[in-house]
Amino acid sequence: MKRRTLLAQTGLGATALTAAATVKVAAQAPVSSPSQPAIRWRMATAFPKSLDIMFSTIESLCQQVSDMTGGKFVITPYPVGDIAPAAKVLDTVTEGTTECGCTISLYYTDRIPALGFTGGIPFGLNAQQQNAWLFYGGGLEATQKIYRTLGLINYPAGNIGGQMGGWFRREIETVDDLKGLKIRIAGLGGSLLKRLGAEVQILGPDEILPALVAEKIEAVEFLGPYDDEKLGLHKATRYYYSPSWWEPGASNELLINLNQWQTLPQDYQTILQLAATEAHHKLLARYTAANSAALERLLANGVQLKTFSPEFVQATYQAAVAMYEELASQDPQFREVYQPWKAFRSKIHKWNRVNEMGFATFAFNAGN
Amino acid sequence: MKRRTLLAQTGLGATALTAAATVKVAAQAPVSSPSQPAIRWRMATAFPKSLDIMFSTIESLCQQVSDMTGGKFVITPYPVGDIAPAAKVLDTVTEGTTECGCTISLYYTDRIPALGFTGGIPFGLNAQQQNAWLFYGGGLEATQKIYRTLGLINYPAGNIGGQMGGWFRREIETVDDLKGLKIRIAGLGGSLLKRLGAEVQILGPDEILPALVAEKIEAVEFLGPYDDEKLGLHKATRYYYSPSWWEPGASNELLINLNQWQTLPQDYQTILQLAATEAHHKLLARYTAANSAALERLLANGVQLKTFSPEFVQATYQAAVAMYEELASQDPQFREVYQPWKAFRSKIHKWNRVNEMGFATFAFNAGN
Repeated sequence: MKRRTLLAQTGLGATALTAAATVKVAAQAPVSSPSQPAIRWRMATAFPKSLDIMFSTIESLCQQVSDMTGGKFVITPYPVGDIAPAAKVLDTVTEGTTECGCTISLYYTDRIPALGFTGGIPFGLNAQQQNAWLFYGGGLEATQKIYRTLGLINYPAGNIGGQMGGWFRREIETVDDLKGLKIRIAGLGGSLLKRLGAEVQILGPDEILPALVAEKIEAVEFLGPYDDEKLGLHKATRYYYSPSWWEPGASNELLINLNQWQTLPQDYQTILQLAATEAHHKLLARYTAANSAALERLLANGVQLKTFSPEFVQATYQAAVAMYEELASQDPQFREVYQPWKAFRSKIHKWNRVNEMGFATFAFNAGN
Repeated sequence: MKRRTLLAQTGLGATALTAAATVKVAAQAPVSSPSQPAIRWRMATAFPKSLDIMFSTIESLCQQVSDMTGGKFVITPYPVGDIAPAAKVLDTVTEGTTECGCTISLYYTDRIPALGFTGGIPFGLNAQQQNAWLFYGGGLEATQKIYRTLGLINYPAGNIGGQMGGWFRREIETVDDLKGLKIRIAGLGGSLLKRLGAEVQILGPDEILPALVAEKIEAVEFLGPYDDEKLGLHKATRYYYSPSWWEPGASNELLINLNQWQTLPQDYQTILQLAATEAHHKLLARYTAANSAALERLLANGVQLKTFSPEFVQATYQAAVAMYEELASQDPQFREVYQPWKAFRSKIHKWNRVNEMGFATFAFNAGN
């Protein structure tokens, strides 16, 4: 009787974050499994708690692992800075200071450009295409080969989806407007803008608004409406450009020390991997919902939405292709991922033009 | 040493279906957990083994559950017809003949129209939007409330993504061409075409080609290039229309008998739910990759790709809206899902026009 009452209470009225929370209450208590090993891991992350969607999705990943092992396998996530700065999370895991980390590869593309293929690259794949490439197009295998040279194994752990092109103090008409522009942007998007004459800086979330206010930077590529609004970027800039050419399907990943990974029982490995996969997709769904609402608020607050001109997009696309071809000619590791990726992209674009574009062009504009 | 050799062998050369397979070999053997309960469930499915992507993804879901419980929680999936026909999988689980089932709600919308919101409805949400709505827009809660009245709990377990509009023996210019058209199509898409004068039939996968050849039907809405090619539909029809207005983000689901669900320990509940979620996203990634390749083969084989005319799309859209408003006025269960769904759709379309459409319009056509 008590169980039924709980189910009714939690299932019908509550606005639980996920349906899991809705129904879990009604279950039997987990059975203690004394023969499963108790494992405690630490996870360094590249994200502050203020990026609450990002950080709480990572917390939820860790919670799922604990839930699925009856509390035996516990991973504690630490915000950026507690163990390492964002740009050092990878190193922390390589060195074994922490058993695992959650970060975005954009912080490491200066050292290893090929890592951009997991985090997101200019004019790369959108979220849905990226998943097809990672899981069924050879992408995860190709990137795991690279990470293995660093003593790591990687799993996708949070697709951020298509975001915004950034905040600009003045209008951007042509690529010439990028010359001398002081802009905050990470990853190969940053490398691209550097080639086009911009003065690129990488700043952590908390440093961005003060730098804008002090006019140390004039433009910011960060995330999407939800996080950008929290950072208050609309208070210090005027123009909000779309879309994000710089990383159309940006994505976080779980990095695990390979030696530590190999000590895990098979069931724990599968559990950790599936929790990461769920976080990967969950983050996109959360951001899609949250950004929809935040964009509406920002526009109501007077933010001016702008679209990069066709001329600008064409010129940055050509520059991106030139950069990739140059990297591929110089860097065998980059080439090995880039060549098959390019062939996959061409094929998937043809299919998505047929099944997705025609529908979206009509339906996204109908009846709203 | 042996572990390292295995890792090298499996990690570098093999084309494992998932990266999990790549690395699992190197793990410790799973630890036996005698205190976890041994549970054996049967799963009725709506899919034949010949739909190999669909069926093997369900097999993989069951395998993951077994892997994560060290072989303690075993679910055996049965192809359509072994336990129940496609249109009776839901009943089988409601009655408790099987503990769970995997099906698509399109088979049940004649009885309960509101179930269309999980399986896919004409001019509904695309895959990415559907996930945002289900997991963070109140969708899963709303549909779980409906399924609960049937003694079931539902979890998304396989998004099929944007498919095709169907195979037609003759060209379709206006909605008048639908009058008297003998077409195979399920769900609310079928209801819509019936309203527009078509003679709608629901046929199982194995019945479709024979019916086309015998001219019992003249048109078929089924799935996407990969499955359609396997069925040989291109041998009996000429025109392949895009895109699928009928169910833009079609989706399978796991149905679990609510009493059985409540007997599961919490950790098994989380494990089953995450395995379903992984299958949900995995199916989309598999189809996206496989359909890309299959479309190329079909076109090389002389299939004529067509796009529904703007006039046709506009008219079917208006008819769909009229149908929804009518259902909402008559059916409180439908109304309760439809009203907030419509508001969510409007908001998400605005955001996706900003972040996805501009990018896709350029990038899907660039450099291919």
